Amino acid sequence: MKSLTYLLIATLGILSYTNLSAQDKDLTQYVDPFIGTQEMGHTFPGACAPFGMVQLSPDTDSILFSTNGKYNKDVYRYCAGYQYTDKSIVGFSHTHLSGTGHSDLGDFLIMPTIGQVNYNPGTIENTKNGYRSMYRKETEKAEPGYYTVELDDYKIKAELTATQRVGFHQYTFPKTDDAHIILDLNHGIYNYDGKVLWSTIRVENDTLVTGYRITRGWARTNYLYFAISFSKPIKNYGCQNNEKVIYNGFWRKFDETKNFPEMAGKALTANFDFSTEENEQVKIKFALSAVSTEGALKNLKAEVPHFDFDRTRAETKAAWNNELSKINVTASNEKKTTFYTSLYHSFINPVEYMDVDGKYRGLDHNIHQAEGFTNYTVFSLWDTYRAQHPLLSLIQPKRSSDMINSMLAHYEQSVHKVLPVWSHFGNENWCMIGYHAVPVIADAWINGLRGFDPEKALEACLASANYNMYDGIGDYKKYKYVPHETSKVGASITLEYAYDDYTIAQFAKSLGKSDIEKEYLKRSESWRNLFDDESGYVRAKTKAGEWVSPFDPLDTHGAGFIEGNSWNYSLYVPQNVSGLANKMGGKERFAAHLDSLFTMHIPDKYFAHTEDITREGIMGGYVHGNEPSHHVAYMYNWAGKPWKTQERIHKIMKTKYLNKPDGLCGNDDCGQMSAWYIFSSLGFYPVCPGSGQYVIGAPSVKEAKLNLENGKTFVIKAPNFSDKNIYIKSVTLNGKPWKYNFINHKDIVNGGELVFKMTHRPNKKWGNSEDTFPYSNTKN
Amino acid sequence: MKSLTYLLIATLGILSYTNLSAQDKDLTQYVDPFIGTQEMGHTFPGACAPFGMVQLSPDTDSILFSTNGKYNKDVYRYCAGYQYTDKSIVGFSHTHLSGTGHSDLGDFLIMPTIGQVNYNPGTIENTKNGYRSMYRKETEKAEPGYYTVELDDYKIKAELTATQRVGFHQYTFPKTDDAHIILDLNHGIYNYDGKVLWSTIRVENDTLVTGYRITRGWARTNYLYFAISFSKPIKNYGCQNNEKVIYNGFWRKFDETKNFPEMAGKALTANFDFSTEENEQVKIKFALSAVSTEGALKNLKAEVPHFDFDRTRAETKAAWNNELSKINVTASNEKKTTFYTSLYHSFINPVEYMDVDGKYRGLDHNIHQAEGFTNYTVFSLWDTYRAQHPLLSLIQPKRSSDMINSMLAHYEQSVHKVLPVWSHFGNENWCMIGYHAVPVIADAWINGLRGFDPEKALEACLASANYNMYDGIGDYKKYKYVPHETSKVGASITLEYAYDDYTIAQFAKSLGKSDIEKEYLKRSESWRNLFDDESGYVRAKTKAGEWVSPFDPLDTHGAGFIEGNSWNYSLYVPQNVSGLANKMGGKERFAAHLDSLFTMHIPDKYFAHTEDITREGIMGGYVHGNEPSHHVAYMYNWAGKPWKTQERIHKIMKTKYLNKPDGLCGNDDCGQMSAWYIFSSLGFYPVCPGSGQYVIGAPSVKEAKLNLENGKTFVIKAPNFSDKNIYIKSVTLNGKPWKYNFINHKDIVNGGELVFKMTHRPNKKWGNSEDTFPYSNTKN
Repeated sequence: MKSLTYLLIATLGILSYTNLSAQDKDLTQYVDPFIGTQEMGHTFPGACAPFGMVQLSPDTDSILFSTNGKYNKDVYRYCAGYQYTDKSIVGFSHTHLSGTGHSDLGDFLIMPTIGQVNYNPGTIENTKNGYRSMYRKETEKAEPGYYTVELDDYKIKAELTATQRVGFHQYTFPKTDDAHIILDLNHGIYNYDGKVLWSTIRVENDTLVTGYRITRGWARTNYLYFAISFSKPIKNYGCQNNEKVIYNGFWRKFDETKNFPEMAGKALTANFDFSTEENEQVKIKFALSAVSTEGALKNLKAEVPHFDFDRTRAETKAAWNNELSKINVTASNEKKTTFYTSLYHSFINPVEYMDVDGKYRGLDHNIHQAEGFTNYTVFSLWDTYRAQHPLLSLIQPKRSSDMINSMLAHYEQSVHKVLPVWSHFGNENWCMIGYHAVPVIADAWINGLRGFDPEKALEACLASANYNMYDGIGDYKKYKYVPHETSKVGASITLEYAYDDYTIAQFAKSLGKSDIEKEYLKRSESWRNLFDDESGYVRAKTKAGEWVSPFDPLDTHGAGFIEGNSWNYSLYVPQNVSGLANKMGGKERFAAHLDSLFTMHIPDKYFAHTEDITREGIMGGYVHGNEPSHHVAYMYNWAGKPWKTQERIHKIMKTKYLNKPDGLCGNDDCGQMSAWYIFSSLGFYPVCPGSGQYVIGAPSVKEAKLNLENGKTFVIKAPNFSDKNIYIKSVTLNGKPWKYNFINHKDIVNGGELVFKMTHRPNKKWGNSEDTFPYSNTKN
Repeated sequence: MKSLTYLLIATLGILSYTNLSAQDKDLTQYVDPFIGTQEMGHTFPGACAPFGMVQLSPDTDSILFSTNGKYNKDVYRYCAGYQYTDKSIVGFSHTHLSGTGHSDLGDFLIMPTIGQVNYNPGTIENTKNGYRSMYRKETEKAEPGYYTVELDDYKIKAELTATQRVGFHQYTFPKTDDAHIILDLNHGIYNYDGKVLWSTIRVENDTLVTGYRITRGWARTNYLYFAISFSKPIKNYGCQNNEKVIYNGFWRKFDETKNFPEMAGKALTANFDFSTEENEQVKIKFALSAVSTEGALKNLKAEVPHFDFDRTRAETKAAWNNELSKINVTASNEKKTTFYTSLYHSFINPVEYMDVDGKYRGLDHNIHQAEGFTNYTVFSLWDTYRAQHPLLSLIQPKRSSDMINSMLAHYEQSVHKVLPVWSHFGNENWCMIGYHAVPVIADAWINGLRGFDPEKALEACLASANYNMYDGIGDYKKYKYVPHETSKVGASITLEYAYDDYTIAQFAKSLGKSDIEKEYLKRSESWRNLFDDESGYVRAKTKAGEWVSPFDPLDTHGAGFIEGNSWNYSLYVPQNVSGLANKMGGKERFAAHLDSLFTMHIPDKYFAHTEDITREGIMGGYVHGNEPSHHVAYMYNWAGKPWKTQERIHKIMKTKYLNKPDGLCGNDDCGQMSAWYIFSSLGFYPVCPGSGQYVIGAPSVKEAKLNLENGKTFVIKAPNFSDKNIYIKSVTLNGKPWKYNFINHKDIVNGGELVFKMTHRPNKKWGNSEDTFPYSNTKN
């Protein structure tokens, strides 16, 4: 039922574009922000500018992370604050994370209401007990930089747009003397009682309100300031502070709940009242800053110095078209929708994290000036080092360099003097494992990005790889693996450190530092220390060198692995796939291992520990919904069976990326899932960032033109690609036959044309010999 | 017993100054920081620089403001964190208020210990259950900018000194492998569970630690940052977070309690460990900033770029001598001790509240740059507008102008757009009544201070006098008094608003704004609306114009008055004493009224509602321990009986200011009690700041030289003053007879000589006719 409704809306959406000839200029028409908003995608449907800090989106959640100290599992469903099938909306908040599997933010919820002021959000099923409202799906529409819905409880039409730092709300009210804008500073994503450390609201004058809140969430100390400009004067205002205040000094002199311009507390909900005529629009510009209310005001004035909602909407749409046109594809509309929605998702996070004047809050909580770069945050690096950052380095090298400069600033401000693990609004949240800023930096440098200082960058990489206190690094260096006593996920950690170390070696090599290169090449082979020749899998090992038993490669939760079992993780040697294949018994046995992975049946019991993937997210034992396997389908290239990669890739793209709200089979993870799709659609994928090469899969567009920042273009053509012609018959690069299973980054950025002849039958002759295999330690 | 002990120490202290000939150059020898530290004075004995933000002092208190929601009355005794008679010290904290009757601060407690680390403060009687220590009074010494004590539990000698922004600790340890410096971020004055909104500690390297805390106390949102520099490397460190943490994200990866350099929470206590040799000194430089840790580091480097404790101690002593030498008095050592201790207390608050680079945190929580002035905070204006600010305007006009500029900055940053009521570390705490920044500004301008913009200042005064939302101003303007329904202390408020309005009139007059002058002169007569001719007292009145009954002028707590009864408050018409005397039935009846005030017996029951004065603080019904009466003894001058003023003043000085820890009869109130003493010792007092005149009392020094900032000197002589010769026989100004009961400010700042001939019998002829009376509305 839901998908029927959805299709109807989607159709209406497409019909609304009457000028079909303009379709290639307006790429936003192919973006459907609802994709991924149901179940596991954890994307949000609201309005944002490309890489914008303000991500203004409807929240349907008001579930607490914890009640009476007990974890509420449902909170996970609301990592982006929204589930497509919910029937009511609690309000519109200004910050979100796109596609994460743990969450935070949801700062500064705004909700328009009419009637008596209600300070409680209400419950998802019953809107009458709170300020939230029911809505009908057919009134809800979204496009890049715009979102609208009708709030049925109040007969209010809500419209949202945004710039980098300003959320722009437009509410069309009925005639009433009791129109309200609710500002709930209690609301949050992954919220819990006590998350708000402090919040304030200052009514500067009858159209301007400032304030801030400091929260203790996934970002341990998150300072966020705001400046709100109303399009018409506030008639009255007030607030409720829903905490038990032990001490309030001489503030008891005032009734802070009514028209008192200076509110503060840990649980504030405020109301701003208006009288409205029928269909009168009340507009709100809501600027953010991580620096100060002064900064928020600067951002407000710089980015939206007017009250023309349509103008901002159009400008943000243009900004999106500008970004989306980095790649022009020729494909079916269905394919374009998946493709451009993926590209859209890849351009949401990271976000610019500084004021218009370059001031930003550093990891040390001091205010810094970004000199010569744009400061970014939201680096979900365990996810995004794989394909999201490589994609940005390819088609957004300027931003990519700035992101690296942001990581280096993080390193300098870190008391640990390490690069970010998960950079989160001026905080390090330490989520997941590895030191994966390292491959992002190494990959960028090796691929020719020069917008950062390589000496400082290498210093930062080395510091991060040697911070013994962090996640077993000390023992990793001592034992050459992370022992089971040190970490219950030590096998996963070891594999990922080994890969990261490979990229340090490559980075050092390119800087002519052969001692470092040698040392880290050696470290990069640490995966061998956990490969159990007897079982043929990577296993956890104790300090004494004993394998951890019992061992079931399908169920190694808590026995060495995280977000993946040994079956999957044993394939995580992207830096030396040939070496791994040899370890596994040679090419044929390696291919058989891969085959069985894609075709096996996984009993239900193995899903007990996963919360972030669906049954639809797997193919046999291959889990596309989680990142450790993202390179796996490309590994047939080292087995002399590239056609199997082509087949698997095609199937993954067809079945794991669907143009519907629940079309993503797992968390989008700040663009990683989407970046996988972009690369794979183009016909190649960065199996091993830092190698300078992409491994060829099979394109699924007839043509794609990369409009590179250096002014050159690189065109990928697969004119006879179809759902049947999914296999590579032959390849030419700039007109010459290309026999290799990989393409070099430099061949792309020099411009040119990569042409695939596709066929409906596996071509077992192309790319099947070792002299065509991609990089590997042994062959590089 | 305690006073005997004290006398012994005091004697030893004096004997320690062997070079008696240098005594006039070293005025600090006359300062006894222990005066006022017992019972009601609420001063602190620790180390500070003149007007310094860092006031590093021992705290003996660890009483919570509230336990289980119940107010602990004992907390009041610890407004300065210290009571002289306590036997143990909990540690040394860096911020205090001097002499207040409500309190806050006590930020960043440091305590040196040895043995096992104990994170609990322990109790005042039993030090074994915490990190606190017993001490003996004879080891405790204090002088301006220096404090020392021996901590007997640990055999550690503690020494403290300070600059404006840096506290400098020097701890002499015994030989031990278990030396610790405890840093307790839970500790505070007027502390309560939940006061710390957030705190962090960063161990930057093995000698440098930074951090901050945000507290919600009397200052509603107080940001204070620190940078700590240790003289030797930290061996190990750790912390305890004494809160129940509901959510800690991925920080659970780390054991934050041991050698983890990034601690955060709401209840942190940290330990820094050292090994020490016998008599080894561990030194700690502890810099503060209200801006950032970066600011604290700047302050640290600028103010104490070395580890020479004695050098800083000597420099701060020199700074104190420089300030104290603004007035040179010739008097007995006993008198000098009272005098210079009073001057010392007058130079502690307000404090400079900005970093060395001029950055400071404004009332809007934004960071501002002080352009062309030094920013100050701690304006306890209800107390200090009376004599403390007039004293500073006289002998510290540069600082006084800067304080006014700070008040104007406060006005501009205030969302209410009003001047400070009680400026408190970047906050307004709204304590007490009135808009008494107004008389401070008006008095300064009228007295010729030109270091601020008068137009802006008048605008700020008018805004403050017309902010209807504040404490009954709206009704004051409507009813011409503050009705009882509006405020239960409306009579006190009305009287003080009327006085404040008089000063606006004078300010406006001096700027040639006669409309404003007229309007506010009219408002300044509002006291008449609450004068009940029948009873002869000021009384509370309802909106309907009815007197509030029953009426007992001795007990009007909650019936119109605050910190004073109607008996005292009825005399609060400093701007028109002649008018008041007439209202009270003429000069003779007025004098009789004053006489009965000073001689009546007050039954105990009337003390039920007071917590901030002692029985010793009163003379009959005259309460010197509270401010509303501070001008009263001078009022005989309008009754034709100035010799009675002379007699009362002498008695107050002799009996209410004693050179012993419990020698202050009430809260020093940020210097107001002390400033009263300074002025009165010199022979005059600002009964009505803003009038341009001081009312003559009687000097109690043989000679005093005011070394004015304009380079001139004004000398007061009373060569034959003695404990018997307390009455004025005659006066000359610059050699000419002076018959007036007042002296003009301009006569002082022009330089000159005021000579009193004193006598042992009242001279009833001097200053007894109306043509010699000080200013009054009717005669001005």
